[in-house]
Amino acid sequence: MAQDWFLEKHTPHAGLSLAVAARLHDQQSAFQHIEVLDCPEYGRVLLLDGCVMLTDRDEFVYHEMIVHPAHLLHPNPRQVLIIGGGDGGSVREVLRHESVERVVLVEIDEAVITTSRRYFPKLTTRLDDPRCAVHCEDGFTYLDAHPNAYDVILVDSIDPVGEAAKLFTQDFYRKVRTSLRKGGIAVFQTESPFYSGDVLAQVQVDLRGLFKHVAPYVAFIPTYPAGMWSFTFASDAVDPLRARLKRQPAFLSELQYLTPELVRGAFQLPAYVKRRIGA
Amino acid sequence: MAQDWFLEKHTPHAGLSLAVAARLHDQQSAFQHIEVLDCPEYGRVLLLDGCVMLTDRDEFVYHEMIVHPAHLLHPNPRQVLIIGGGDGGSVREVLRHESVERVVLVEIDEAVITTSRRYFPKLTTRLDDPRCAVHCEDGFTYLDAHPNAYDVILVDSIDPVGEAAKLFTQDFYRKVRTSLRKGGIAVFQTESPFYSGDVLAQVQVDLRGLFKHVAPYVAFIPTYPAGMWSFTFASDAVDPLRARLKRQPAFLSELQYLTPELVRGAFQLPAYVKRRIGA
Repeated sequence: MAQDWFLEKHTPHAGLSLAVAARLHDQQSAFQHIEVLDCPEYGRVLLLDGCVMLTDRDEFVYHEMIVHPAHLLHPNPRQVLIIGGGDGGSVREVLRHESVERVVLVEIDEAVITTSRRYFPKLTTRLDDPRCAVHCEDGFTYLDAHPNAYDVILVDSIDPVGEAAKLFTQDFYRKVRTSLRKGGIAVFQTESPFYSGDVLAQVQVDLRGLFKHVAPYVAFIPTYPAGMWSFTFASDAVDPLRARLKRQPAFLSELQYLTPELVRGAFQLPAYVKRRIGA
Repeated sequence: MAQDWFLEKHTPHAGLSLAVAARLHDQQSAFQHIEVLDCPEYGRVLLLDGCVMLTDRDEFVYHEMIVHPAHLLHPNPRQVLIIGGGDGGSVREVLRHESVERVVLVEIDEAVITTSRRYFPKLTTRLDDPRCAVHCEDGFTYLDAHPNAYDVILVDSIDPVGEAAKLFTQDFYRKVRTSLRKGGIAVFQTESPFYSGDVLAQVQVDLRGLFKHVAPYVAFIPTYPAGMWSFTFASDAVDPLRARLKRQPAFLSELQYLTPELVRGAFQLPAYVKRRIGA
C-alpha cells in the first residue's frame, strides 16, 4: 500500500514532508482551510491553509518561546493579551505565571478554537481557566477599544498573507503600542530568518520607529521552515539584551525548551541575520 | 511537466523535500553512493548514500561551526587534523587562521574529493594550499601512526552507519585524544539533538570518560534533520563554557554564521537537550 505523505512547500522548491497515518479533520472556515493530520513522527498536526501551525511533538518550542521571555523580563506582568493563538498553547504557558491576573485571547476564527479543543486537548487545558477570557473577533479592532490596558501583548499570528497581512503593518504595531501599559512588552512571531529575512528586516524597521528597544530572538522549531523561527521583542521600558530575569519561578525547571540562560542567549543571532536586519 | 523532487527521509516518517532541476552526478564509489543534484532553492547538493551532506546555500553554517570555535578558543593552533571532510569546506575555514602551519585532511574516499573539486569549487579552493596535505586513507589507522601531533582535531564524519560507525566509538575517541598535543581540542559532528538524542547522549558519556571538558553546541542548518545540528567539543585544557576568545582575527567580521558572542552562545542548549545528555 502506498503511504500517504503530506508536503508543505516552504518555498516553491523546498519543504517538509510528513508521512500521514490519518486525515482527521478538513474544514473551510469563514477565514481559512483548517486540517488536522495524524502523523507517525509528530503526532497530530494542525494545518491552516496548508501550513503547519503546530504539532503535538514540537509545539512546546513555539509556545514556550513566544510567551516566557517577555513574562520573565517584565517586572510584574498582570494583564496579558494574545492576538491569534486560537490553539490555546500560548494561554497555557501564560497562565504558568502566578502574577498574571487575566489573559485575553483574541482569535478571529472561532473554528480554530473549536478544532483545537477537539484534537489538541493538551493545548487547550487552560482556555476555561477563570483567569482566561476568549474573544472571537478581529485583533485590529479589539486593540482600538483597549488602549493602555496590557502589560504583555503577544502577537501569535499566522504568516503575513491574506487576512493576516495587516498584522505585519506599522499601523498595527502602533495600535499594539497604544494598548500597552507603561513598562509593557510586546512580542511578535516574525517568520523564518532564513527564508523570510525580508519580512524580519521590515518588521525591525517598522518597530524601531515606534519602540525604544526592538530585538529579534530565535528558536529551533523542527516543523517550521528551515527549522529556524524568529520572534521580535519590543518595549519602551525593557532592553532584552541588558535586562536580567525578574524572577525564576519553580516551573522554569519543568520547561522543555527555555532555560534561564537561553532567555538572553536566544537573542544571539547568526551573523547573516544580524546583517540582514542591520544589527 | 511533473517536477522532479528529491526526498531525504530523516526518519521513516519525516524528511526534507527539494525540487531538482538536474541530476549532475551519480557514482558508486568503493565506499558509498555519491550524487550531486542541482536544486533551485539550495544550488548544488552533495548526497552521500542518499543523505544531504552539504548544499551551496547553507554549507557555511556547518563549516564555520565545526572549525572556528575550537580555533578561537585554542591559544595557538598550529597543527590541525581533519578526519573526513573530503568536500574541502573545513580546510577552507581552518586556513583562515594565520597561526595554522599545516592542516592534514584524511578522507577515506578519494571520490568525494574528486566530486567536490568538480562540482563545488567554492569549497575546495584551499585543498591545494601549500599548508594543506591531503591523505586518502582510513582516519582510524592514520591516528595510530600520529600520536601527540595535533593542536586541533576535527571529526567531520558522515552519520554513524556502515563504515562510519566506528568513528562513533570510545576506541576511536581514545585514538583522537592520543593524537592531540598538550592543550589540544577535538570537535566531533554529533548529529541532530532532536532526532538523534540517543547518539548525542552516548557520545557525551564516552567522551566524558576520556576528556576533562566535554560539551556539545548547536547550530541552525536548514537542510539537516530538524534544522538543528550538534557538534561536541572535547579538551583536557580548554573549558568552552568558561574560556574567552584567544583572539578576534579580522576575518571574523566576514563570517556568515559565527559571531564572537555565538562562540559561547552556541553552547546554550535547549532544556530537553540538556536533560537528554545529563547536563
